[in-house]
Amino acid sequence: MPPFVHDDFLLTSEPARRLFHDYAEAMPIIDYHCHLPVREIAEDRRFENITQIWLAGDHYKWRAMRAAGIGEEYITGDAPDHDKFLRWAETAPQTLRNPLYHWTALELRRPFGITDKLLSPETAEAIWEETGALLARREFSARGIMMQMNVRVVCTTDDPASDLSDHEKLAAEYASGAFPIRVLPTFRPDSVMPDACGTAEGLALCRAQIERLADAAGTEIRSLADLLAALAARQEKFHAVGCRLADHGFETFRYTRSPSADPEKAFAKILADTPLSDDEILALESAVLFETARRYAEKGWCMQLHIGALRNNSTRLLRRVGRDAGADSMADGEYMRALSAFFDSLEQAGALPKTIVYNLNPASGYALAAMAANFNDGSVPGKMQYGSGWWFLDQYRGIREQIEILSMTGLLARFVGMLTDSRSFLSYTRHEYFRRILCRVLGEDIESGFIPADLESVGAMVRDICYNNARGYFAF
Amino acid sequence: MPPFVHDDFLLTSEPARRLFHDYAEAMPIIDYHCHLPVREIAEDRRFENITQIWLAGDHYKWRAMRAAGIGEEYITGDAPDHDKFLRWAETAPQTLRNPLYHWTALELRRPFGITDKLLSPETAEAIWEETGALLARREFSARGIMMQMNVRVVCTTDDPASDLSDHEKLAAEYASGAFPIRVLPTFRPDSVMPDACGTAEGLALCRAQIERLADAAGTEIRSLADLLAALAARQEKFHAVGCRLADHGFETFRYTRSPSADPEKAFAKILADTPLSDDEILALESAVLFETARRYAEKGWCMQLHIGALRNNSTRLLRRVGRDAGADSMADGEYMRALSAFFDSLEQAGALPKTIVYNLNPASGYALAAMAANFNDGSVPGKMQYGSGWWFLDQYRGIREQIEILSMTGLLARFVGMLTDSRSFLSYTRHEYFRRILCRVLGEDIESGFIPADLESVGAMVRDICYNNARGYFAF
Amino acid sequence: MPPFVHDDFLLTSEPARRLFHDYAEAMPIIDYHCHLPVREIAEDRRFENITQIWLAGDHYKWRAMRAAGIGEEYITGDAPDHDKFLRWAETAPQTLRNPLYHWTALELRRPFGITDKLLSPETAEAIWEETGALLARREFSARGIMMQMNVRVVCTTDDPASDLSDHEKLAAEYASGAFPIRVLPTFRPDSVMPDACGTAEGLALCRAQIERLADAAGTEIRSLADLLAALAARQEKFHAVGCRLADHGFETFRYTRSPSADPEKAFAKILADTPLSDDEILALESAVLFETARRYAEKGWCMQLHIGALRNNSTRLLRRVGRDAGADSMADGEYMRALSAFFDSLEQAGALPKTIVYNLNPASGYALAAMAANFNDGSVPGKMQYGSGWWFLDQYRGIREQIEILSMTGLLARFVGMLTDSRSFLSYTRHEYFRRILCRVLGEDIESGFIPADLESVGAMVRDICYNNARGYFAF
Repeated sequence: MPPFVHDDFLLTSEPARRLFHDYAEAMPIIDYHCHLPVREIAEDRRFENITQIWLAGDHYKWRAMRAAGIGEEYITGDAPDHDKFLRWAETAPQTLRNPLYHWTALELRRPFGITDKLLSPETAEAIWEETGALLARREFSARGIMMQMNVRVVCTTDDPASDLSDHEKLAAEYASGAFPIRVLPTFRPDSVMPDACGTAEGLALCRAQIERLADAAGTEIRSLADLLAALAARQEKFHAVGCRLADHGFETFRYTRSPSADPEKAFAKILADTPLSDDEILALESAVLFETARRYAEKGWCMQLHIGALRNNSTRLLRRVGRDAGADSMADGEYMRALSAFFDSLEQAGALPKTIVYNLNPASGYALAAMAANFNDGSVPGKMQYGSGWWFLDQYRGIREQIEILSMTGLLARFVGMLTDSRSFLSYTRHEYFRRILCRVLGEDIESGFIPADLESVGAMVRDICYNNARGYFAF
Repeated sequence: MPPFVHDDFLLTSEPARRLFHDYAEAMPIIDYHCHLPVREIAEDRRFENITQIWLAGDHYKWRAMRAAGIGEEYITGDAPDHDKFLRWAETAPQTLRNPLYHWTALELRRPFGITDKLLSPETAEAIWEETGALLARREFSARGIMMQMNVRVVCTTDDPASDLSDHEKLAAEYASGAFPIRVLPTFRPDSVMPDACGTAEGLALCRAQIERLADAAGTEIRSLADLLAALAARQEKFHAVGCRLADHGFETFRYTRSPSADPEKAFAKILADTPLSDDEILALESAVLFETARRYAEKGWCMQLHIGALRNNSTRLLRRVGRDAGADSMADGEYMRALSAFFDSLEQAGALPKTIVYNLNPASGYALAAMAANFNDGSVPGKMQYGSGWWFLDQYRGIREQIEILSMTGLLARFVGMLTDSRSFLSYTRHEYFRRILCRVLGEDIESGFIPADLESVGAMVRDICYNNARGYFAF
Repeated sequence: MPPFVHDDFLLTSEPARRLFHDYAEAMPIIDYHCHLPVREIAEDRRFENITQIWLAGDHYKWRAMRAAGIGEEYITGDAPDHDKFLRWAETAPQTLRNPLYHWTALELRRPFGITDKLLSPETAEAIWEETGALLARREFSARGIMMQMNVRVVCTTDDPASDLSDHEKLAAEYASGAFPIRVLPTFRPDSVMPDACGTAEGLALCRAQIERLADAAGTEIRSLADLLAALAARQEKFHAVGCRLADHGFETFRYTRSPSADPEKAFAKILADTPLSDDEILALESAVLFETARRYAEKGWCMQLHIGALRNNSTRLLRRVGRDAGADSMADGEYMRALSAFFDSLEQAGALPKTIVYNLNPASGYALAAMAANFNDGSVPGKMQYGSGWWFLDQYRGIREQIEILSMTGLLARFVGMLTDSRSFLSYTRHEYFRRILCRVLGEDIESGFIPADLESVGAMVRDICYNNARGYFAF
């Protein structure tokens, strides 16, 4: 058989092949949202074996292995790396039709150049050896892989209390020309949001984070005003090192413009270690959200809202493995009115930043895209973005669906495109995957007469979506 | 290049082409739901330029222009018509894959006959000139366009307090043969529904509408009974001028059969200018809904329910532009139990009218279609209809999805078909668009063996859906 | 015309045809969830005419007939069987694109062998005669049809209070080789769940069921502990006769791990004929659910959860026809947090059984599939299953969508496959229908390069999904 993932993988029409090879393929990557550990880029981490770079931290694979009947020892437990890899190799063929199947083949192909076999128990040893030999080479360090994959900008995700020293180091290397990829932080203040402050456990976590933030800001936090000032101070630091994005995650989006509790008093209760009522949490959350968003607008930042992850469903796995253990799924709450109130409050205050919204539950896709589009105001092309398929939706159907929803409710031509959202240096082929799917959709459109057969202008749009739009929109 | 929209546009199979050209294309149009201003039909309005007939009032285009970064001055502001058109021409190519792209090409083709170019900055001046010259001709007046488009019946949307003089004039012209298109009102009592009576502002609006209604009915409204009597009196007037449909719009559908407040007392609070509690609103709303629906059944009318529009999200645009400014999107509430209670209450009272339900949020599509179908009772074929794709869903995928959901949960063969829902005399090609999609779907079915390759019977069904079913069902 | 349903029906590619004919077609059927009356199997019922086996009890057809304008007399009323059949024959052609259209053709083809005509008024008499003659033959008794359709295992759905004598008889016949099909009960304790105990009517029903249960268990039920003991006793009896599945139905799923009411006291109110508050219902429901589920795990059973049926919407039909009258549709409530709490509580107690979840509202599909998959623990391959398209979703698109959702969020390779969920002995072609669709999907995948063109391994997966996975998973 010819390689499964070949040059024309997923490109089922001639226009699709032209669009991909002549327009999309060569565009560099702006990975404006990911979860790579910045330390590993700063230190240019080397990987001992494929398990370390591929399985460690990858809760997508963990879920598949559990579903295949593999014991936890071989997933997140103490089994040797080689054994874990063999169990993953057993699981891989069972992922047929799952995005993991395609990702696995794509990642073996690039950067490893393995196209003559798919991962399975039969090929596992050979792949272990081949990848191991490659990972020992300089081009397969963290930075080496990023260079191979034609990455220009990477935005990591960072707590406001983060020491930005790694980012400062990388910024200096970029400025001096020592490392040509921009690595920028993203401001993600979720840890100081009070959403879990209704329980003693959540309260303790939140207080610890507030202290970390105070330390990082070199100040004391004795009031809500202090908290906001500390966040503002950290935001300045982030801005100075190149940050232009913020990110907030929500199980379901909540916001009130007429709180029934006093946010200042609610915050005082946190400091006093007293659990908050739900009304108090909502009041405080709304106040912090509004103030942080207002400052994003002042700085010209883009605000990302990730809505709909119901996390840590399995207490067993939370205790054994911790957060991000592969026991997260989708919330199904109602939130459009709250999101409307949030955007409207900001807009009325002249303080609505550029915004990207992402939904995890596909049932919310159309409503979310249409809600965001209500607040385009002509100030920035594509100001309100409906973001690309996220997490469980970062797969063939989810990517197509996001393209379709955005097309039907807004301007695909203004889309800022794909991101990896990944913890792994091997995930850059997700940009390739997205581009293949985008070109496939547009190729089908041309073939069926749904759009004009004008390769040049459609190709220009493809390039915009792959790279140019993000470059203009984020203005790093 | 050949014209983008050509005779076989969207008709990707031979059976589709046969079904469209031999069965669908020639069928006249019954546009049983639209928002055309009846005055403009009565006066046979002429349009000075393409901006007046195409951009004024079209909040679909406004949204696209804002997303493209166009300033409000050129959208709803004071810029000259010609400048506005040029900014729309800049935006149009960016709408690729959006329904606006297809609509634009379809409307230039019919009635304007422009098939050699698509709207863009390069073609804008030529199109401005060509359309301007045509609009100066008699065949491009409001009525002229309707005649060109083979329209037989048009149902406008009218407040119960509306002066029906324009409809009376048109009815007389129809009766005399002076104008061969029936133009009928639709009874839409939303303005006197108490849903906003929880705030002083909403209360004032509602009271003003009640006074208008009282004036129109030539009576006084001092009680809920008076209100219902005034509505009934107006309904008689509407009926006399040919009205056979009602319409209600809901953010989310609410209804109770066991109200916790007294509707009469709640209504008294409106007259006393006292804001209502949510329970009172619900009680009053339910009472008015039930009574109006009951009367629709008595008169053999069809009741339309449009569910799921979350309106006026941007206070900025509401203040600057007003309602219908392009800042509306989809609600995501739960409402199936309430809708069930409403239909069941009516059915138990022997008073459930023919009903068409429309959902704006696609997440509700299947549940809504299945809910309506619970109440088919054998009295009228297709009594409970799942209506065609509405607003944000009035596009290629939305139209297909409605056809699919209806097919899978009910009888496509009984479907009363498409409507424009439009404010513009140029929107009649939406019927053509729908018919092309319907024929495409059925053509694919025939090609794949999903339905029998029996063009004659499938074609008969197509004709029914395009025209015959609506004619029989509404019995104008 | 060639037969509409032919050997390659729905198999639109060469790989699809190979997968179906070489791998899927010959696999036996394990129908692990249905609503066949066990008495009719035990007695090997004969059917006088096609109406008795096809229309009696089939609320899918009833809904279609009502939508077609047929009076209730000919649907569930007193009209003669022959007249009812003629009215169904009038309706059948109008179901084009509805699953009923395909099911009708599939069922005439198998077991009746009628492939030269589709049901319509023109063919009705001939089909009445042909099927009537066949039904008079031994091979068309209840058991005869099951044998013809290559059925190996059937699981009926049974109240805990059911007399299991028919199942015992069938088990004996199976053991002796007199009847080679295993017919097993499924434990469905919905009737003793307190969800309707907020009203006098619901309370009376529930108390009657509790008494029936007490009688069946040969005990008295004076407390919640007694109820649970009686259920456990019945579960033992079910287990002894071969039962390995339980089933629970929910309008929306509710569960609390910190009840605000005492379940024991709530149960006492039932016995005292006092309506329960909603909090009490929830507390009691949660307690019973937890305890029954825990016992399923102990016994190695599989727990099925059917979520989202909003039943008996039409009081008129409930009074006239009873339950399952064709007036059921989809609930649209939020329930993921509750389901998470339920699974997590069980898992923490080491008591989470194998589970299959089914959603009726398609808007919940992705979230439900992802929620279940959170709780795979490596103990059993495919432990947490996202079940096949149910009821309104048991149709071409629904079946595809379930395959897609499962593929994208889990392991299709571990899927336990299709079931009929039917009340009719003629429904076994739903397995064929599913298999054709499964092979079509995979055939398209191979043709488009979405999966490798490895017929052997894809074919092995097909066989697993059709039969092997269910055999291994349920371990009857």
